[in-house]
Amino acid sequence: MRVPDELISFLKNEKKFFIATHIDPEGDALGSSLALSMALEVLDKETILYERDPVPEFYHYLPGQDRFKRYIQSLTSISDLPLILLDCNTLERAGLEGLKFKSSAVIDHHEAETGKGGDSGLFGDIKWIVPEAAATGILVFYLIKEMGIKITREMAINLYSAIAIDTGTFRFGNTTAEVLRIGAELAEAGASPVYISNRLYETWSKERFALFSMTLNTLEIKDSVAITYVSQEMYKKTGTGPQDTENFPSFPRIIKDIKVSVFLRELEDKSWKVSLRSKGDFNVAHIAYRMGGGGHKNAAGFVIKSDLGSAKDTLLKLLRL
Amino acid sequence: MRVPDELISFLKNEKKFFIATHIDPEGDALGSSLALSMALEVLDKETILYERDPVPEFYHYLPGQDRFKRYIQSLTSISDLPLILLDCNTLERAGLEGLKFKSSAVIDHHEAETGKGGDSGLFGDIKWIVPEAAATGILVFYLIKEMGIKITREMAINLYSAIAIDTGTFRFGNTTAEVLRIGAELAEAGASPVYISNRLYETWSKERFALFSMTLNTLEIKDSVAITYVSQEMYKKTGTGPQDTENFPSFPRIIKDIKVSVFLRELEDKSWKVSLRSKGDFNVAHIAYRMGGGGHKNAAGFVIKSDLGSAKDTLLKLLRL
Repeated sequence: MRVPDELISFLKNEKKFFIATHIDPEGDALGSSLALSMALEVLDKETILYERDPVPEFYHYLPGQDRFKRYIQSLTSISDLPLILLDCNTLERAGLEGLKFKSSAVIDHHEAETGKGGDSGLFGDIKWIVPEAAATGILVFYLIKEMGIKITREMAINLYSAIAIDTGTFRFGNTTAEVLRIGAELAEAGASPVYISNRLYETWSKERFALFSMTLNTLEIKDSVAITYVSQEMYKKTGTGPQDTENFPSFPRIIKDIKVSVFLRELEDKSWKVSLRSKGDFNVAHIAYRMGGGGHKNAAGFVIKSDLGSAKDTLLKLLRL
Repeated sequence: MRVPDELISFLKNEKKFFIATHIDPEGDALGSSLALSMALEVLDKETILYERDPVPEFYHYLPGQDRFKRYIQSLTSISDLPLILLDCNTLERAGLEGLKFKSSAVIDHHEAETGKGGDSGLFGDIKWIVPEAAATGILVFYLIKEMGIKITREMAINLYSAIAIDTGTFRFGNTTAEVLRIGAELAEAGASPVYISNRLYETWSKERFALFSMTLNTLEIKDSVAITYVSQEMYKKTGTGPQDTENFPSFPRIIKDIKVSVFLRELEDKSWKVSLRSKGDFNVAHIAYRMGGGGHKNAAGFVIKSDLGSAKDTLLKLLRL
C-alpha cells in the first residue's frame, strides 16, 4: 500500500492537528483516530481528537479513549487548524458541516460519492480514499510505518481493534493474507488477540442475553428469508434498550439456506426500524433505497410505519427471491 | 517450531502409512490428517486415512474429505504399516485400541497423560506432542515446510480450517502473532478466509437453529457459572441429534460476568455429557480429570451418571469459584 507523499509532507509540516471521525463511532473510527493521534505525538505534534457522539461503553478499553472531545470550545481557533478526517469522507458524516479549517486531509476506506465535479468534487485538500482497504486502521498502520514511527502497544491495540471490528476478526470477505499479516505484526507489537476479542464479543449483559434468547424465539422463515423482531414490550420484560440489539440482525445468517435476514425493531412511535442483512451477491441496498433508507450491498436499513404483521408482509413482497 | 529429525526420517524412509485421528472428529483432526496425506503423496508415498466416525456434513467442503475410510479391511495388512496418529495421543482416542502397527509416530497438541513410566509410558515410537501449539494443523504446517513440500491450495484449505476451528478463527487465547502469520501464509497459498468462515459458521440447518433457541431458553446463571442443556426430548422436538450441538457449549461465554459455561447433553442411557468452557485463567481441565474426563485449560469434558438436577448441583459444587 503506497502512502501519498503529500500526506506525509502535510503531517510533517504542520504542528497541530484537529482529528475527527464519523458520528455514531465504532472500532475502526475510534481505533484509527487514537493510533494516529499517538503516532503524531511521537513526532512532537499536538492533536485535538473530536467525536460528536459518546464512545460506546464496550470500547472503553481502547487506550486513550478519553482523549475524544465532544464539544468544540472555540470555532475561531479551529479555523486555524489543519483537519484530518478519518473513516469518513464528508464533514457531514463527522457532524462538522459548515465549519472551516486551515487545510484538510481525508483518510478513509468508504466509497466516496463523487459529485458533479468528479474527484475534484470530493472534500479534502488531500484525499487518501482506498475502498479496497479492509479498514481505515490498515491505512493508518501503513502511514505510521511510512513515517518511521515504532508502533507502541497502545497504538497496536487500537489498530488491531479497528481491523478486528471491520473484518469480523478475520472472517469477512475483506480478510486477505495482507490483513492477517498486519494482524500478526500488531500482535507482536503488543495487541493481545484474545483480550481484544473478549472485549469485543464477550461483554454482553445478562439482560442483553435474555433479549437475544427472546428474539431468537420470534424467528419465522419464509423461503430464504429469516425474520426476527424486538418489540418495546421485550425491552421492558428484559430491562434492555435499542443499544442492546447490536449484531442481532446478522445472527440468523448462520442458517444455511437463508439469503436475507430481516430484523425489525419497534421504535417508540410504533413504527419499525428494519435491518436487512444478506449473504453473498444478494443486494439489499436497492430495497432500502426504495424504502427511503440506505446502506451497503449486504447491510442496509429503513423505517416502516405499520403494524408488525403488515410490515412483515411488505418485506416478504419486497424480498421475493 | 522445531520439527524432530527422527520424524522427518520416519516419513522419508517409509513408503506407505496408516494415518488415523480421534473419534468424533472436528476440523483440526480432519484438516491436519488430510493435509499430511496430500503432502506425503507429493513425495510419492501412499497413505490410508482412517476415521472411525463419519465426517460431519459441514466439513464436507474440506478437499479430500472422502479419503477417510471408516472400516479396516484386513487387520493383518495393517500390522505391516507404520501408523501416524494425529490430534490425539492414544490408540483408544482413535478407536484403534489393541491393534498393532509396524511402528508409530504421534503428532498432537493435546496434553498427554504421562503414565507411571513418565514420558516413556506414552504411546508412540516417535512423539511430537506440543501442548503450546494452537492446533495440530500448526505442527503439520511446519512439518510440510520442513520436508520442502510446496503447500497447495487444497492443503492450505485443510490447514487453515484446522487452525480456524481450534482458535475460534483467531479469537482464543492460543492466537499468537505466529498463528496469524501462518494464517496469512495459508491465505496466500489459496485458502479463502471468508469461504472457510462461511462454511464453518453459516451452515446451520433450520433444525439446528431451533435446537439452539431452545437451548438458550434453558439458561440458568449461578454466580459466574452459566448452565445450559439439551435433552433427548429436545432432539426429538426439533429433529436434531448430538452432532448439532457443536459450539453450543461456548456460546454463553459472551456474557460479561460468566467465568465458566457448563453445557449438558443427555446421552441415550440417561447419563449426561458435560462440556466446560472457561474464560481466561480459569482451568477446567483439572475438574474434568477428577471426574474421569479430559481436555484443555479452557475446554474440557466428562460424563456424569445422574439426573439433570443432581448433575447441576454436583457441577456447581465442583466449580465453586
